[in-house]
Amino acid sequence: MTDKLIIFDTTLRDGEQSPGASMTRDEKLRIARQLERLRVDVIEAGFAASSNGDFEAVRAIAQAVRESTVCSLARANDRDISRAAEALRPAARARIHTFIATSELHMEKKLRMTREQVLEQARLAVRFARNLCADIEFSPEDGYRSDPDFLCRVVETVIDEGATTINIPDTVGYAIPELYGNFIRMLRERVPNSDKAVWSVHCHNDLGMAVANSLAGVKIGGARQVECTINGLGERAGNCSLEEVVMAVKTRRDHFGLEVGIDARQIVPASRMVSQTTGFVVQPNKAIVGANAFAHASGIHQDGVLKARDTYEIMRAEDVGWSANKIVLGKLSGRNAFKQRLQELGIEMESEAEVNAAFARFKDLADRKSEIFDEDIIALVGDESVTAAQEHYRLLSLAQRSETGERPHATIAFAAGDVEHRVESQGNGPVDATLKAIESKVCSGAEMVLYSVNAITSGSTESQGEVTVRLQHGGRIVNGVGADPDIVVASAKAYLSALSKLRSNAERVPAQS
Amino acid sequence: MTDKLIIFDTTLRDGEQSPGASMTRDEKLRIARQLERLRVDVIEAGFAASSNGDFEAVRAIAQAVRESTVCSLARANDRDISRAAEALRPAARARIHTFIATSELHMEKKLRMTREQVLEQARLAVRFARNLCADIEFSPEDGYRSDPDFLCRVVETVIDEGATTINIPDTVGYAIPELYGNFIRMLRERVPNSDKAVWSVHCHNDLGMAVANSLAGVKIGGARQVECTINGLGERAGNCSLEEVVMAVKTRRDHFGLEVGIDARQIVPASRMVSQTTGFVVQPNKAIVGANAFAHASGIHQDGVLKARDTYEIMRAEDVGWSANKIVLGKLSGRNAFKQRLQELGIEMESEAEVNAAFARFKDLADRKSEIFDEDIIALVGDESVTAAQEHYRLLSLAQRSETGERPHATIAFAAGDVEHRVESQGNGPVDATLKAIESKVCSGAEMVLYSVNAITSGSTESQGEVTVRLQHGGRIVNGVGADPDIVVASAKAYLSALSKLRSNAERVPAQS
Repeated sequence: MTDKLIIFDTTLRDGEQSPGASMTRDEKLRIARQLERLRVDVIEAGFAASSNGDFEAVRAIAQAVRESTVCSLARANDRDISRAAEALRPAARARIHTFIATSELHMEKKLRMTREQVLEQARLAVRFARNLCADIEFSPEDGYRSDPDFLCRVVETVIDEGATTINIPDTVGYAIPELYGNFIRMLRERVPNSDKAVWSVHCHNDLGMAVANSLAGVKIGGARQVECTINGLGERAGNCSLEEVVMAVKTRRDHFGLEVGIDARQIVPASRMVSQTTGFVVQPNKAIVGANAFAHASGIHQDGVLKARDTYEIMRAEDVGWSANKIVLGKLSGRNAFKQRLQELGIEMESEAEVNAAFARFKDLADRKSEIFDEDIIALVGDESVTAAQEHYRLLSLAQRSETGERPHATIAFAAGDVEHRVESQGNGPVDATLKAIESKVCSGAEMVLYSVNAITSGSTESQGEVTVRLQHGGRIVNGVGADPDIVVASAKAYLSALSKLRSNAERVPAQS
Repeated sequence: MTDKLIIFDTTLRDGEQSPGASMTRDEKLRIARQLERLRVDVIEAGFAASSNGDFEAVRAIAQAVRESTVCSLARANDRDISRAAEALRPAARARIHTFIATSELHMEKKLRMTREQVLEQARLAVRFARNLCADIEFSPEDGYRSDPDFLCRVVETVIDEGATTINIPDTVGYAIPELYGNFIRMLRERVPNSDKAVWSVHCHNDLGMAVANSLAGVKIGGARQVECTINGLGERAGNCSLEEVVMAVKTRRDHFGLEVGIDARQIVPASRMVSQTTGFVVQPNKAIVGANAFAHASGIHQDGVLKARDTYEIMRAEDVGWSANKIVLGKLSGRNAFKQRLQELGIEMESEAEVNAAFARFKDLADRKSEIFDEDIIALVGDESVTAAQEHYRLLSLAQRSETGERPHATIAFAAGDVEHRVESQGNGPVDATLKAIESKVCSGAEMVLYSVNAITSGSTESQGEVTVRLQHGGRIVNGVGADPDIVVASAKAYLSALSKLRSNAERVPAQS
């Protein structure tokens, strides 16, 4: 058996399914490029048949990414599989990932199909897919809760039809390491042609054991692919965390004896990008990527305790991409310095016009903030790429005030397409007044389900605030993100951005795997 | 072997050691009462010898808590153990938890002691402690990385001296489930008097496997106590999460066959209280207690997918204490209704004067905010208990404004003890201007290492914002929390509260276990 462990990242597919984590095509493309820098083996870029937007995102990623295999999910039917193949056509290496549920509960309640119907549909789907693509992954959804006899028949059948990877999901996060590891081993021992496919694990974190379950699937079960997401993003309690599973295999090489191709120094940049893009915060006590994960990353030394570094540390912060904030640019920095820093940060701009627009924003920020950190640049470019997608609503100007004993008040000017509006309102606070003023004109009827603020550069209120606003309307959920040194302005930008997305986003078909 | 699993919560000791998570005596007392409602078996209340503040906190908790055993940590020396025993005197059930490092690395680099010295010190410490208290726990720090032969000798010795619980910490979070489980089993098999003590597991989450490791220690190793914290709070990547380990044992009772005494409906209230008190956010995709952990808790339904609830859910949100926000009170609610709601929320006030002060704040809030949710009341009371500790700095009034093209400006009046100050400043944003104005008078020289905002009631900017400010100065770190519908006012309150704490907090001795 090979000693290479394949890292399959599904941040852009299973991660994105998380309520509130949906991303635009440009956001997904930016993250895919970072995943390629991270040297992920397979990037699951989306679910091409679910919407035109997702189709376009998968195609754009297939075009842009050269080093990683690009994968699209597809239900086990010809239309989904054709759409996936079409979206993947530009890829250097393509994979189609098709799935159908095999547990009694899912077959009966969700699919309303018999075992024989499911088996036949799986067979035909893989046969059809294999004619379009040489690299085919098959997942029996809710596999861990499926009847082993039936599951073995399904897996044997799809391998016979040419499936090259067999992925066994613990869809509901119910597994326990030794049980899951033994389940995978049992399947591999019982399925006669099991050696003709790579076995893969896909675990959810509902009981907090997704990483341990995945690693038991590898060590005990003999799986050689792990499906995971940056920051453990995913529905409910999320998926197996890429950063945890990768660093466990690297740190405990003595136990696992496996190679992973990941460039771990890209882990923290990837974590920040996913967190900033989706608005899903990473808690300080999150392993590897949390702000407190390495004591000295927060500048704290416990005097007299850390006499030897390895007394309390099994990994080094710099090995996973933590580095001190560097003041790289300021008011006097020129366009070339700015462009060079973008390159060093791995940010690719599509055109010189985009660089110019980002540089103009940089100068504007530098007028108001003396020290510009890498995080500021990343936020600024994020902001920029959103605008590049031509948002419908744009902030023009804002004035607000609050005083003890009086109702806070805001006056705001914004553009809706080509029309300028000027509105004002009172509110419970200045942010509330600002958002009420906008809503009084837009009348979106959207419900706000999240409002959160993070300082972009660690701590200080001198830094930019990054505000995430999550709106829900008509069954859809969107995030808007806005950054500014003024928290009220950042809030207005975030709200307008969310309203723009709500206006433009297409409906999607929900998927599960 | 018993089928009861003892839940030992160390949120107030190992959790509090997390940089930035230090709590006041009143905050710790409030959390201890919630842990008692949660029916935790053992509450590790602190490390009595580390500071006068911690001594007082342990004593206050020992006085207040009747149902749970109250425990204090103590290094393996007579002074620490005496202080622990003294602080625990009022307890209905008391435990002293003493520890000394047993790994070569820690003995050599941290303790600078030989094996024989460590063994002798452990023996004498347990002998001394046992004369003061019948319930003695002993931890060999960094036990999992210790030489098994030496570790067996140490454990046998301390059991002979009367230790009733033996806790084997994976201090650096290096373990893997099957290895850790087998390690505990090996120890229990090799130590001749192992059946005279309860064995305990204490795991850190550096590789994301603290919960799985703890459960392997229980299932494979035969441990019957798990040490854990609410939200997995703790240094670096934190400790084993109480909520995850408890719900894994309950949900997979088929596998573990163990009883836990925890009232799981108190889990989410405990999580919120710890998060609000420490300012450590819980990420949305955190198992059990994250906002997204249960799809329907955020009001989201995936149409056509959730045909049967158990298709995607292995636990019920309401069983762990998630419930819809209820509008319970408003402008017209009276003091009795307010007091009754406090009782229903399990909030105990120490005097009628405290109830009156909280009610006055409630009326003030109700004037500015039409719907008062449970979270608002909890925040208001939190605010109140802080004030009850007589903060040195208090906000009197605030006026701020910002406008596109101009520098944001703030004017603020605050009290420092009996003196009133009125100051003004410009800043990068209105929050920055406000904090700069305060700092211009106080001249604390403190560095801000965290600034974060959460809306208290889900989403809406109509709700109160809760701001956490973390300051670092002279090697100490403190949190200030402030709540208000106006985010600038909340920021000013949080900053003043942090400055007050910085002024009053005593130095502490750092501990590790």
